Amino acid sequence: MRIAVDVMGGDHGCGVVIEGVKRALANDPKIAAIHLVGRQEDIQSALTAASVTDPRVQVVHASEVMAMDDKPTVALRKKKDSSMARTIELVAEGKADAAISLGNTGGILALATLKLRPLPGVERAGIATVIPAPDNEFVLLDSGANIDCKPVHLAQYAVMGHIYSREILGCQKPRVGLLSIGTEDNKGNELTQEAFKLCKQLDINFIGNVEGYDLFKNRVDVVICDGFVGNVVLKTCESLAVGMISMLKEELSRNPKRQLGAYLAQNALRAIKRRMDPEAYGGAPLLGLNGTVMKAHGSARERAIMNAIRITTETIQHQTNQIITDEIRRATERLAESKPAVPVTVPA
Amino acid sequence: MRIAVDVMGGDHGCGVVIEGVKRALANDPKIAAIHLVGRQEDIQSALTAASVTDPRVQVVHASEVMAMDDKPTVALRKKKDSSMARTIELVAEGKADAAISLGNTGGILALATLKLRPLPGVERAGIATVIPAPDNEFVLLDSGANIDCKPVHLAQYAVMGHIYSREILGCQKPRVGLLSIGTEDNKGNELTQEAFKLCKQLDINFIGNVEGYDLFKNRVDVVICDGFVGNVVLKTCESLAVGMISMLKEELSRNPKRQLGAYLAQNALRAIKRRMDPEAYGGAPLLGLNGTVMKAHGSARERAIMNAIRITTETIQHQTNQIITDEIRRATERLAESKPAVPVTVPA
Repeated sequence: MRIAVDVMGGDHGCGVVIEGVKRALANDPKIAAIHLVGRQEDIQSALTAASVTDPRVQVVHASEVMAMDDKPTVALRKKKDSSMARTIELVAEGKADAAISLGNTGGILALATLKLRPLPGVERAGIATVIPAPDNEFVLLDSGANIDCKPVHLAQYAVMGHIYSREILGCQKPRVGLLSIGTEDNKGNELTQEAFKLCKQLDINFIGNVEGYDLFKNRVDVVICDGFVGNVVLKTCESLAVGMISMLKEELSRNPKRQLGAYLAQNALRAIKRRMDPEAYGGAPLLGLNGTVMKAHGSARERAIMNAIRITTETIQHQTNQIITDEIRRATERLAESKPAVPVTVPA
Repeated sequence: MRIAVDVMGGDHGCGVVIEGVKRALANDPKIAAIHLVGRQEDIQSALTAASVTDPRVQVVHASEVMAMDDKPTVALRKKKDSSMARTIELVAEGKADAAISLGNTGGILALATLKLRPLPGVERAGIATVIPAPDNEFVLLDSGANIDCKPVHLAQYAVMGHIYSREILGCQKPRVGLLSIGTEDNKGNELTQEAFKLCKQLDINFIGNVEGYDLFKNRVDVVICDGFVGNVVLKTCESLAVGMISMLKEELSRNPKRQLGAYLAQNALRAIKRRMDPEAYGGAPLLGLNGTVMKAHGSARERAIMNAIRITTETIQHQTNQIITDEIRRATERLAESKPAVPVTVPA
């Protein structure tokens, strides 16, 4: 497997990314090549600093960097030599099997959609983020790619999320739920009510509507929603979890008695961190594209990068995109059969 | 002030509600009367059990109870003698100044909209829920009343949320933010992008788009969104906070060393509970109606009920509805002026 990594555009500089790459290479002999894409001089000095001498590493120079607040149009029209664009081009040209970037989501999505195109039958790519919960983990799809969704997009996300949960997270029969404002079948807005009817037709374990209350109670493995709602949920959860943990730290350090208590209970606090580890997956795939593209968090550090590469190799090995193509075709047929009079707006 | 309380329909029975009423009466001599609405025999035995002899308490019999899964149409067409309907009718008939119910939101909203009608100029009522954050608290509006919103509804929520934060939460110059998927002005879906333009015209401290990351970092006092997004956010936050706290308890009780640590640090854990107290407000008002209506959580216990009554009396005392009427009128004029060619769809 050959993986292209956009080493620029992360919050902590390319050295951190290259350190993560080093760990991934040490762990996985099946990686045939890693292309490090970015400013050559920056990469060379980071390689020297990290003492990386692995012959599988190849440097691909790109003169420009997408900033976090650059609009998607900048990626497409202005910064044609951005590390992000060059990374995705390596996949489009068949020189790499997958692309990983820490850069801004809008840019990655625009470039990947343009240069790789969606898989046959897929209407829109979606971002599948794995969110840790106390007793399980769940996939949130779409978590920010497709802001104004149509019902059929949500149905396709249900299919893709089901595949990702089964193939990559090892969930045998993932419970797929549609995020809504109540669990009854008729609850929801116009979009989810229509999507509900489509999801009911699919050959997946669709458990119906789920609400916010269900997310952290091990009741659902794949949560389907539009990219606006998903992005709000993702960021809200991160904000609340981080807020609660920093409040806990602050309160525990307030006086010597509490500090002693915290010292004695430190393994409990570590266990919580382990159970709710946001870096366990390091990257979220853009599912539905004709190529494997992984978006890593802008603030990803070494371990997150290493994990993002691991997830990427697993996504390739499981031939996830081939499975998505097959199952989307079958889903499209089922949806067309169930509504013979008014054809569903899915490409045949 | 005279307050009508629907004592049925909560998760813990009417005894808990009546206990909360008793505490509120003890705290607040300005309450002139509390109407307890529900099955007379249930109420009488609960009053006896709680030794309530306050002459300000009046019992209003209602033979039916709205169930949590009853649809709004049941409230309107079938259960005409529900405690929920009778409670709201007391306000409509001028026999009470405010209504409080723990029952299902859809039913309360349908009944209150039908029997009380919106305030002049207000297009849709919204639910304003106060969410505790580590270093502040914020109003989330709408948190579940208006599922398929129009831009002008969000702009009106911005006005009403601003008033509620200032008058009831004592926030001098509330920071009002539009919940979106990025902080840049152009981020959002079709709805929020249009609402953004309207909010910019308002005479409030509109800070622009906020995202999930901002919610628990003391960056915003009033968060505006449609009822679908708000309801998902509200329930997700509750689920995550409860999940994290039960995980903490579980890990802290796992062995004697951790238990000792937890014992020494117990004041830290109490401080966190105090700082993130979900019962501090007990109820969320339906803002924008011609009458004061408070929705309490179905699982509310004594303290939450007492606090819901406190917030209700404050809402009345501050003449919140009169202020909303005045400021909505001014907002409507501003929006009409800023778009002379294409009139904004706000009633004049």
